[in-house]
Amino acid sequence: MRLDTQRFWADFSRVAAVGALSGGGCERLSMSDEDMQARALLADMMREAGLAVEIDATGAIWGRLSGEDDTLAAAMVGSHIDTVRNAGIYDGLLGVMLGLSALRQMKEQNLPRRRPLDLVVFPTEESARFRHPTVGSGLLAGKIKPRQLASMADEQGVSLSDAMRLRGFDPDRFESGQARLAGAKSFFELHIEQGPFLESEGAPIGIVGAIAAPTRLAVEICGEYAHSGACPMPLRRDALAAAAELILAVEQAANAEAAHRTVGAVTLCRLKNESINVVPGRVELAVDVRGIDTDSIGRCCDAIRASLSEICARRKVAGSIRVLSADLPVRLSGRIMAVIEQACLQNRLEYRVMPSGAGHDAMNVASLTEAGLIFIPCRGGVSHNPAEAVDPADVEAGFMVLSDALLTEANG
Amino acid sequence: MRLDTQRFWADFSRVAAVGALSGGGCERLSMSDEDMQARALLADMMREAGLAVEIDATGAIWGRLSGEDDTLAAAMVGSHIDTVRNAGIYDGLLGVMLGLSALRQMKEQNLPRRRPLDLVVFPTEESARFRHPTVGSGLLAGKIKPRQLASMADEQGVSLSDAMRLRGFDPDRFESGQARLAGAKSFFELHIEQGPFLESEGAPIGIVGAIAAPTRLAVEICGEYAHSGACPMPLRRDALAAAAELILAVEQAANAEAAHRTVGAVTLCRLKNESINVVPGRVELAVDVRGIDTDSIGRCCDAIRASLSEICARRKVAGSIRVLSADLPVRLSGRIMAVIEQACLQNRLEYRVMPSGAGHDAMNVASLTEAGLIFIPCRGGVSHNPAEAVDPADVEAGFMVLSDALLTEANG
Repeated sequence: MRLDTQRFWADFSRVAAVGALSGGGCERLSMSDEDMQARALLADMMREAGLAVEIDATGAIWGRLSGEDDTLAAAMVGSHIDTVRNAGIYDGLLGVMLGLSALRQMKEQNLPRRRPLDLVVFPTEESARFRHPTVGSGLLAGKIKPRQLASMADEQGVSLSDAMRLRGFDPDRFESGQARLAGAKSFFELHIEQGPFLESEGAPIGIVGAIAAPTRLAVEICGEYAHSGACPMPLRRDALAAAAELILAVEQAANAEAAHRTVGAVTLCRLKNESINVVPGRVELAVDVRGIDTDSIGRCCDAIRASLSEICARRKVAGSIRVLSADLPVRLSGRIMAVIEQACLQNRLEYRVMPSGAGHDAMNVASLTEAGLIFIPCRGGVSHNPAEAVDPADVEAGFMVLSDALLTEANG
Repeated sequence: MRLDTQRFWADFSRVAAVGALSGGGCERLSMSDEDMQARALLADMMREAGLAVEIDATGAIWGRLSGEDDTLAAAMVGSHIDTVRNAGIYDGLLGVMLGLSALRQMKEQNLPRRRPLDLVVFPTEESARFRHPTVGSGLLAGKIKPRQLASMADEQGVSLSDAMRLRGFDPDRFESGQARLAGAKSFFELHIEQGPFLESEGAPIGIVGAIAAPTRLAVEICGEYAHSGACPMPLRRDALAAAAELILAVEQAANAEAAHRTVGAVTLCRLKNESINVVPGRVELAVDVRGIDTDSIGRCCDAIRASLSEICARRKVAGSIRVLSADLPVRLSGRIMAVIEQACLQNRLEYRVMPSGAGHDAMNVASLTEAGLIFIPCRGGVSHNPAEAVDPADVEAGFMVLSDALLTEANG
């Protein structure tokens, strides 16, 4: 199918305008007024498009396009519309709006479809407000328990469960949404890559084979505070210089696993009681290692640990590592990857099979049904930023692949 | 002279108790209520000791012990009693109280002294509140102009000139204090080392030959923010990894100048818009380089600049260096060093001739009259911290050297 671009961009812009920021981009934090307003607008659009809309108790929005036999398992498409702070407009929303366009155009063009199709919009995908990502899909997938939401609090101390109840939702009543998700034939999500790989390859489509999981380490290095003028160099135990070596060791450990697509970086670096005239005595670092190969992630973390020990012994500083999280990578369905690949070939679109470094709702859905994830390039790999941009031609290519794959599934 | 230890420690403790913190240490920020209370207590003690006390318009407290001929230039001793936040009790106060004890004991013991002796307490030595160090002595020395105090503001936006006026002082009327300082025969300051050198050498006395001056650089490194999972390693432009290389390059550049006693460190490291799942895109560093050899400081800074250029070119990140300050080291009087040395030999006290890495009031006074700086060890080199500690035997040694040197000068 070819995208009805004019109408698509008009509809896309209407939703993207909710929470628009003066300097570009938008902000629709989970369960905020802007999020609720955009959700209401989207539900209206889904109804106008001829979908039967239901909102389940967890806040997931479902829109059904009937097929010849609605007792059959549905082909499903979905993503999210909540955003980070100071967000770009394409993250999440693009996949939802392309899914809506696909279902609407299928209905308008009376394209044959044996099965029903569902569009699903998961709530609270971004961790920006409640500090936990993909909560809506995680709840339906059973990976996150309803009671956990009580301890996911925003900066004002409001828990996600309270924020949901305030909006009329109830995380305890996740079963109906879960049943609907588990009963699907398959699930497709289209998303901007949020990395520079496809752009650098000049390919419009990425077929995701596996979704990386982050292992996050909290590292603390304690040396000795000293006067930055009075303490001779050989007597210093500079915590920041030790941290600098570890930052480079993390980079090196990840580079050594590049063949396995493992990546790693120190993403936070905080000095405690810092002062311009004091040799740093204590530094806290956060390490984010991700990959799709569990062994490779393990080797990378082992190398980081070994480096820290060596650095601390040599520099006579104390170091400790605490594992904040260590999730398992998710492999996506090979059958669905083949369906997506077929849609690329059919439309003569170049594609790359690639991992996703970022987490997505598809990784949760994958535990209940066969799931696929389609990437399109974003300019410079920039995301989570008002500067987020896409090439309209890539959006049209993404639509062709998504809609054709959905049609294949709806008739399979 | 031998210290009257019992009375010394009783008096010392009374002043140290002003602004005492519950967890040990004390806090008397410049021009705070605690500072004013401690100054009043000290002025009373000076009067009780038989000194003629005057407080000049800038807030410097002067106490005179008469000699045989008070028209002669005075031998002078002094330091400060204001503190940093969460301070130790010895920084500044120890030198003032030992000076007071010396003058009192000279008077009580009727020791012959041809010249008068002055004890001076300089205000606002610490930069903790108004972000500029040694302001009181700098003002009297003419190194700091009165109008500059209007732009030295604390965190609440209160300028030092306003804070002084609130306490009845007037920075514009610095001339009388300046004249008194310029008219002195010589000036002595005793201070804890604030570094670990003397302790590591097992010597109770340091004779300072030169006071290092800080060159401070603000470095900014701009790479590219990227998703910490989605961006492949070769496509990253990690600002923190580049900063890590610079941190180590600063350390290396200073180590290369160790023979010239130049030291250097990155003391601040701040990530902008940091997030645990984002490869750092922008890092701000502060570099503090100090030494007593201007050429060596220059070579060290040149090496840092060259390293930054090389790192930025190789990593494809942008880097900039801004010079925040570049003061000149101050050489202290060789004649006064010899007087102090003689006092050490006389008392059979081991000493080391050493530089001061930290700035002190003596460096300002040195521009008006011959100045000397005596160090005693502090435990572990720890200072600006409630854990600051001294060995009472070192305090007694310091007193012998200080008081004998003062007597030599008072009769010279």
